[in-house]
Amino acid sequence: MSNYTPTKADKFTFGLWTVGNRGRDPFGEAVRPAIPPTKIVEKLAGLGAYGVNLHDNDLVPIDATPAQKARIVRDFKKALRDHDMTVPMATTNLFYDAVFRDGAFTSNDPKVRALALQKTMNAIDMGAELGARIYVFWGGREGAEVDASKDPRDGVKRFRECLNYLCAYAKSKKYGMKFALEAKPNEPRGDIYLSTTGAMMAFIETLDDPKMVGVNPEVGHEEMAGLNFYHVVGQALEAGKLYHIDLNNQKGIKFDQDLRFGSENIKGAFYLVKLLEDSGWSGPRHFDAHPYRTEDEAGVWDFAAGCMRTYLILKEKARLFNRDAGIQTILSQIRAQESESGLHALMGKFSPAKAQKLKQQKFNKREMAAKGLRYEKLDQLVIDLLLGAR
Amino acid sequence: MSNYTPTKADKFTFGLWTVGNRGRDPFGEAVRPAIPPTKIVEKLAGLGAYGVNLHDNDLVPIDATPAQKARIVRDFKKALRDHDMTVPMATTNLFYDAVFRDGAFTSNDPKVRALALQKTMNAIDMGAELGARIYVFWGGREGAEVDASKDPRDGVKRFRECLNYLCAYAKSKKYGMKFALEAKPNEPRGDIYLSTTGAMMAFIETLDDPKMVGVNPEVGHEEMAGLNFYHVVGQALEAGKLYHIDLNNQKGIKFDQDLRFGSENIKGAFYLVKLLEDSGWSGPRHFDAHPYRTEDEAGVWDFAAGCMRTYLILKEKARLFNRDAGIQTILSQIRAQESESGLHALMGKFSPAKAQKLKQQKFNKREMAAKGLRYEKLDQLVIDLLLGAR
Amino acid sequence: MSNYTPTKADKFTFGLWTVGNRGRDPFGEAVRPAIPPTKIVEKLAGLGAYGVNLHDNDLVPIDATPAQKARIVRDFKKALRDHDMTVPMATTNLFYDAVFRDGAFTSNDPKVRALALQKTMNAIDMGAELGARIYVFWGGREGAEVDASKDPRDGVKRFRECLNYLCAYAKSKKYGMKFALEAKPNEPRGDIYLSTTGAMMAFIETLDDPKMVGVNPEVGHEEMAGLNFYHVVGQALEAGKLYHIDLNNQKGIKFDQDLRFGSENIKGAFYLVKLLEDSGWSGPRHFDAHPYRTEDEAGVWDFAAGCMRTYLILKEKARLFNRDAGIQTILSQIRAQESESGLHALMGKFSPAKAQKLKQQKFNKREMAAKGLRYEKLDQLVIDLLLGAR
Amino acid sequence: MSNYTPTKADKFTFGLWTVGNRGRDPFGEAVRPAIPPTKIVEKLAGLGAYGVNLHDNDLVPIDATPAQKARIVRDFKKALRDHDMTVPMATTNLFYDAVFRDGAFTSNDPKVRALALQKTMNAIDMGAELGARIYVFWGGREGAEVDASKDPRDGVKRFRECLNYLCAYAKSKKYGMKFALEAKPNEPRGDIYLSTTGAMMAFIETLDDPKMVGVNPEVGHEEMAGLNFYHVVGQALEAGKLYHIDLNNQKGIKFDQDLRFGSENIKGAFYLVKLLEDSGWSGPRHFDAHPYRTEDEAGVWDFAAGCMRTYLILKEKARLFNRDAGIQTILSQIRAQESESGLHALMGKFSPAKAQKLKQQKFNKREMAAKGLRYEKLDQLVIDLLLGAR
Repeated sequence: MSNYTPTKADKFTFGLWTVGNRGRDPFGEAVRPAIPPTKIVEKLAGLGAYGVNLHDNDLVPIDATPAQKARIVRDFKKALRDHDMTVPMATTNLFYDAVFRDGAFTSNDPKVRALALQKTMNAIDMGAELGARIYVFWGGREGAEVDASKDPRDGVKRFRECLNYLCAYAKSKKYGMKFALEAKPNEPRGDIYLSTTGAMMAFIETLDDPKMVGVNPEVGHEEMAGLNFYHVVGQALEAGKLYHIDLNNQKGIKFDQDLRFGSENIKGAFYLVKLLEDSGWSGPRHFDAHPYRTEDEAGVWDFAAGCMRTYLILKEKARLFNRDAGIQTILSQIRAQESESGLHALMGKFSPAKAQKLKQQKFNKREMAAKGLRYEKLDQLVIDLLLGAR
Repeated sequence: MSNYTPTKADKFTFGLWTVGNRGRDPFGEAVRPAIPPTKIVEKLAGLGAYGVNLHDNDLVPIDATPAQKARIVRDFKKALRDHDMTVPMATTNLFYDAVFRDGAFTSNDPKVRALALQKTMNAIDMGAELGARIYVFWGGREGAEVDASKDPRDGVKRFRECLNYLCAYAKSKKYGMKFALEAKPNEPRGDIYLSTTGAMMAFIETLDDPKMVGVNPEVGHEEMAGLNFYHVVGQALEAGKLYHIDLNNQKGIKFDQDLRFGSENIKGAFYLVKLLEDSGWSGPRHFDAHPYRTEDEAGVWDFAAGCMRTYLILKEKARLFNRDAGIQTILSQIRAQESESGLHALMGKFSPAKAQKLKQQKFNKREMAAKGLRYEKLDQLVIDLLLGAR
Repeated sequence: MSNYTPTKADKFTFGLWTVGNRGRDPFGEAVRPAIPPTKIVEKLAGLGAYGVNLHDNDLVPIDATPAQKARIVRDFKKALRDHDMTVPMATTNLFYDAVFRDGAFTSNDPKVRALALQKTMNAIDMGAELGARIYVFWGGREGAEVDASKDPRDGVKRFRECLNYLCAYAKSKKYGMKFALEAKPNEPRGDIYLSTTGAMMAFIETLDDPKMVGVNPEVGHEEMAGLNFYHVVGQALEAGKLYHIDLNNQKGIKFDQDLRFGSENIKGAFYLVKLLEDSGWSGPRHFDAHPYRTEDEAGVWDFAAGCMRTYLILKEKARLFNRDAGIQTILSQIRAQESESGLHALMGKFSPAKAQKLKQQKFNKREMAAKGLRYEKLDQLVIDLLLGAR
Repeated sequence: MSNYTPTKADKFTFGLWTVGNRGRDPFGEAVRPAIPPTKIVEKLAGLGAYGVNLHDNDLVPIDATPAQKARIVRDFKKALRDHDMTVPMATTNLFYDAVFRDGAFTSNDPKVRALALQKTMNAIDMGAELGARIYVFWGGREGAEVDASKDPRDGVKRFRECLNYLCAYAKSKKYGMKFALEAKPNEPRGDIYLSTTGAMMAFIETLDDPKMVGVNPEVGHEEMAGLNFYHVVGQALEAGKLYHIDLNNQKGIKFDQDLRFGSENIKGAFYLVKLLEDSGWSGPRHFDAHPYRTEDEAGVWDFAAGCMRTYLILKEKARLFNRDAGIQTILSQIRAQESESGLHALMGKFSPAKAQKLKQQKFNKREMAAKGLRYEKLDQLVIDLLLGAR
């Protein structure tokens, strides 16, 4: 059995804001002191991580002078080099400052939209300087509580205008970046526009350069809407649109919890890991989660280690699934139906002749309906596998 | 004040399965006798409806002979003529028969997929004969409880193959139809693939002929995922993809309820009606709901009348909203910001020169953040309007 | 039509923390300056409110010296007198300070439990000094993310021990107070113990003095669990256990939103107001909500005025419901069944003779099942009434 | 490692309606033939079950003659004897027949309430004849969609009157039964009265004989409201009110799914099993779940075997948890705080002297707040244990 120790090859990354989370919540103050970004880099490297990701203001305070910013970035780059760490992804904080309280790119106030563009261009510049090839957009304030205040079609149009502008900006700078859009159904807004990964994928097709833009699905954000994240990521992968991914966990439909990966929905986490591994996903395994508010700094590193460890355990389970005789027997019977049906000639690409024949085909509906599919057996084998009981 | 009596011009339609619902549920048997489709046509016409929609088996039993089918269709067409009723939309029942219990177009069994294609081609033929220009696809069984049984990417691929086939079929027949895809997150399956209208819109872009296919969002299906239906329909309309709509209501995130339109989420129903009316939506206002299980046939017609009445009341509210001095004063102040900002020259279509200037623009962030947006006032005016208190 | 202007007789109260909310949320900083409690008292009095409620630290900072505290309380009492305002309810903040991050009364650390008792005794003293007759307990941190850390039975035992202690304390001081327990299913904890009003009512029966303790249900807290608040309050009232109530609104099952009363679930708010008014509820109508984050101070008072106005509009609707001919005709037919059945002699208090007869009674089940109950009609009349369309 | 084969000593029971479920759902017809109750008894006995439970109409059709009923019961008792099986629990079907569509004990029609009492007395008689010592009440139709139709206080009063009657009836017959009330938040009704186990426990205290009545919590019913079932059962056990339990699983807040025990919420199932085992629960482990609709009869028995197997695996995990050095080290440190605090003398039972001292106690709040609680570590150890990775 593996010892489940992460290595660079595993490509595990954490946001500075995740291990750096101080435990502030709607009903309570911060519980932990800030950890300097350079220390985060050092500690995560020691745990086996591959890189860190960041919002502009995770690293550089929003009101820093150019000189302060230059010094901070210089020190941070040194830490990255010292610890062989990368910054695969960067993003903009367009939600914390009060100026963005009614949206950034979708604000009713064009001054706010302009400021959001400016802030994002600057943050893209910094991301590029740090080597980020993926730039994420999570529009935490791009939504509404009062639907009278904005036509949702205007929200979409404004978001599109800004995304098109920023795509062109990054290309004009030859940054070689791709953009990844992250959906969330609600919180902090009552409802957020383009609320699911599906909605974001549909929106992307309306952009000037759809190829430059994909999605960054987050486990908890889809589960907050009760959706099956395995299905969501499956659709994104199949469409070639998975550009980044946010791994965490969530106790069902409630407030956004950002819990340690694999700590709640074990079965869902397993299928997700299996899908990423089976599909040959080569991007980072990024954790967008944070430690419980009960933890001191030692607990922060327990949290980070736990995210990676559980991923590796589930990766091993995925390997076992693919060679488990009981499971594979059932799956091969399922697959065998494809070759046995003799009907493929009438399906696939349409032709009038095929359709004519297919309409005359006789089916023994009763017999087809009576066949047991053995899914109780199959699912129990998965449960046994997950529990280490086979 | 209007008397809120529906007319043909209102384009209200009902599924045969809605008023025809017999009240069967997971824990109880049917409570009402079947109402013959021809009687449904007559009664709905009398109430002011414009048309009826149907699944193939709402009209013709699944095991009917060709002769039986011909007779049933003939009688039904006569009833339509007699009562000046149309069939704007038709669809296929691919969920009730046990043969489809693990999916129709996405079944692991190619025989089931072939049968589903055959059944749908026949149903499309019948829909065309009845004059339907919109053909809806709701894949009630296209999902899973046991994710080990199917890679969700295969689900998407199979669904695409079938949709492409059927698009080509309808075109080969010159039916002049458009297809509308209807999403639902779960029920009757544990999870259903392409679970939201957003996911369906993204999927459509991967079809051979995306223009032929749009969406048929249903109020309750999005609200079962906690999503804001006004936002969902806004995205679909803005993208030119709203091809049909299913109106009903739902008491939040729980089992699918298909309640009388406007009976629960009054505010949400208002914004939806306002959006449809303001956008000049010219398609049918289709009700996909059913009467409470407490009703006899008289209650069925109360239900149908109520759906239409509430729509018309809310349409009148939308008209009042657009001329309400208090509301419009706030909205005009919101809009005035567009012309006042003086920043449009730096936004819109990207150019390096614009970006350069925008990066140098100074913003008074503190002042921008301090301005009150008057949304409490605005929302209260809407509540007053809805309650008839202004 | 009434002008819906609140008066003292309406007994509207607000928490200092509600209008005093500064708009801080998990993803954003405060957006409004603090409003001094004395100014809150003045402004709310001007709007027609009856009183204010408070957590100890809404008025007195947690680390204030005794002298500071005395001065603050003196000034506050003067403001109350000046503006003819009362403090009907007080409570303790046992959630904001980091020391309570794993619970107060249910903490695994007895020092924390002791501190929580001490803080609450002091806060009860202050509440008594301000005239509060209801003391509320909301245990925001009394829960868990990690169920391995605590047996939930220990959570209940510790909560009971503290409640018994504090009941005895208040009685020893002859404060004449009643306690009201407030449930919430989750947030800020992953799950909170005794998560519904029902669970709290059951718990109360296990206390030393159940009569001293009742519940303080909050609209949003039950709706976060998808429960029908009208039913919840109905059970509490019927059991004589409604000691206080928190009025607000919520957009369904998601994070706690504390929205303006009546702004979202209009129908639910109507039934709640009707129940409070019809039952002769004599306690305060307390609003536990806060303004949108888009508002400046003017918006705060719009918010407060809106809560009261909507309550009064719905109170008028309740009056109209009780005299609406269409509605009352149906309800009187429902009630008439009671006298007509002729079966009451076999029901009510059990006797063997009754049971013997009842077992022999013949029922025409088919006829009973076929009768339409006219609930579609009845509900539509309610919708018409709410929308001002009758 | 155990082979996880169930024995009578494990006390596993199944409802006749669970393995007998034919796969009918709101959108589809039955997929499996009925299995005769006597065969169910035989098959479950062969799998290692201890007993079966039943609704009256699971065994005897609602319109059976007395002679038919007598024969059916006689044959069934023979099957029980032949296979050494028991009937620990019985219940009444008060939801399937159309006559109960608006409630049984809470119906607005006293004839329906009388019929429900009659049907329940007869079913209690049959339960007693079969040896049942627990009688369960699940009021599937005791709720509403239209709140105008019934004051929820009347619902509670009527439910109480019927429960009191039936308690007295069972005592008059000296059946030695206890009653167990089962809550559900909604489905098939829009909302169901007394919607949580907590609400039921509170209601029980208002009955004539609260000791005779406890609760029958069901995993999925609480999880449909997003509640933590471990906490719910903890409260019931602590209060001595857990009289029966329904084991199944659910994919979060959505329609009632009744999935195989342990198949979805693995962590929750683990804590539940641990609680039942650690508390010495001596009642049956009853499965109220049903096979997927994809199964034939072989799959039905796979399902039943899987429920029991997963319970036994989790029971073994619970044993390992209690002797795991890593886990127990953290837990013993948590417990050690109790003896170390030196504050117990000031807590526990109230006295004025204690309170006086406690109010003067000094606390180092900052130090108490800074201490890490090691819950990330603890929870990861549990995940490792569940996944067989330690």
